[in-house]
Amino acid sequence: MTSAGPTTDDESEPRAARKRRAILGAAATVFLRNGYVGTSMDEVAARAAVSKQTVYKHFADKEALFSELVTATVAEASDSVHDEVLHLEDSGDIEADLRDLARRQLAKVMQPQVLQLRRLVIGEASRFPALGRAFYDLGPGRTLTTLAGVFAQLAERGALRLEDAALAAEHFNWLIMAIPLNRAMLLGEDEPPASELERYAHAGVRVFLAAYGPR
Amino acid sequence: MTSAGPTTDDESEPRAARKRRAILGAAATVFLRNGYVGTSMDEVAARAAVSKQTVYKHFADKEALFSELVTATVAEASDSVHDEVLHLEDSGDIEADLRDLARRQLAKVMQPQVLQLRRLVIGEASRFPALGRAFYDLGPGRTLTTLAGVFAQLAERGALRLEDAALAAEHFNWLIMAIPLNRAMLLGEDEPPASELERYAHAGVRVFLAAYGPR
Repeated sequence: MTSAGPTTDDESEPRAARKRRAILGAAATVFLRNGYVGTSMDEVAARAAVSKQTVYKHFADKEALFSELVTATVAEASDSVHDEVLHLEDSGDIEADLRDLARRQLAKVMQPQVLQLRRLVIGEASRFPALGRAFYDLGPGRTLTTLAGVFAQLAERGALRLEDAALAAEHFNWLIMAIPLNRAMLLGEDEPPASELERYAHAGVRVFLAAYGPR
Repeated sequence: MTSAGPTTDDESEPRAARKRRAILGAAATVFLRNGYVGTSMDEVAARAAVSKQTVYKHFADKEALFSELVTATVAEASDSVHDEVLHLEDSGDIEADLRDLARRQLAKVMQPQVLQLRRLVIGEASRFPALGRAFYDLGPGRTLTTLAGVFAQLAERGALRLEDAALAAEHFNWLIMAIPLNRAMLLGEDEPPASELERYAHAGVRVFLAAYGPR
């Protein structure tokens, strides 16, 4: 990160890190409220209670700031989904195991801030394709790859029957998430009742196992 | 439609209709290129080769123009999907019938202009919830309702086995469309190869029938 101009700040590392965090927090609020075009670095600086110079010291421009916000938010949500998938165990009750995974995945993906950011990234995907790509690769793409690997192992042990583990992972993912995710995207239903998510997890796993479960 | 101010135009009906069409065509281009915030009525007027006054005569403000664009585009795509669903016949080969429907649905939903508009509506859904609601109700919501009705009839005739026709319709819809639609939303893959869509239609129907098909 290079300095964007002369500055009188002589920040110690911890202080710089604190400011960086404050700027990202302010950016989340301002971008999610005003959209990409409606956001100015001035407003982010004011909200973070730092100078505009400090904002530019940490982030070269608005696009870099937005990109870092997307990357940080998605990576955080994705890390935990990724861990959940890796820890999917073959307890001998594949239906219970998958239902448990489905529930946890839904809880991570259906976080209001992640949903708001997803809407913003989709809205800007034509103009900033790299952002959509980053969201995909760090989020759903990464989860799908891990899930496909785990499904292939389960198939080897006879707990699933499948020929194309990547396609099976996509089917699982969307049977669980497409209904609430699509409603969130278009209708802004960012906090559906837990009982509804439970119902989607349950029904999605049932359909998945009818096609891919052991005979 | 009320006049938004004094005008010297004394338009005959056909001429007014022509101008309205020209304005909507220009609006599609400008909104999809620049986003909602980045679009001005001036630019739409210039592109439609009409005066700004004429634009305001037809559309009270930018929101009304955008709303009409969304409504017209989605209703047009949705009308044909709706007809396809209604004409789903029980030919005795439910797999072939559903595969045929899936293929046609994908062709309508995966039109580049409909996808671009979907991205734009999602991006603005927080600020303009009525638009997301209109897109949902005229598009996926309407298709899902019709599909649920048709599935319930097929179940009565023994061609499907289901308890919750609305949930089965959602599962069918997303097994077919979620993969390419999500890739289009985040990755801008608005024109996937036909062979890929064919594969999603085929595999989606197979999974659906494993869960909901006759024994």
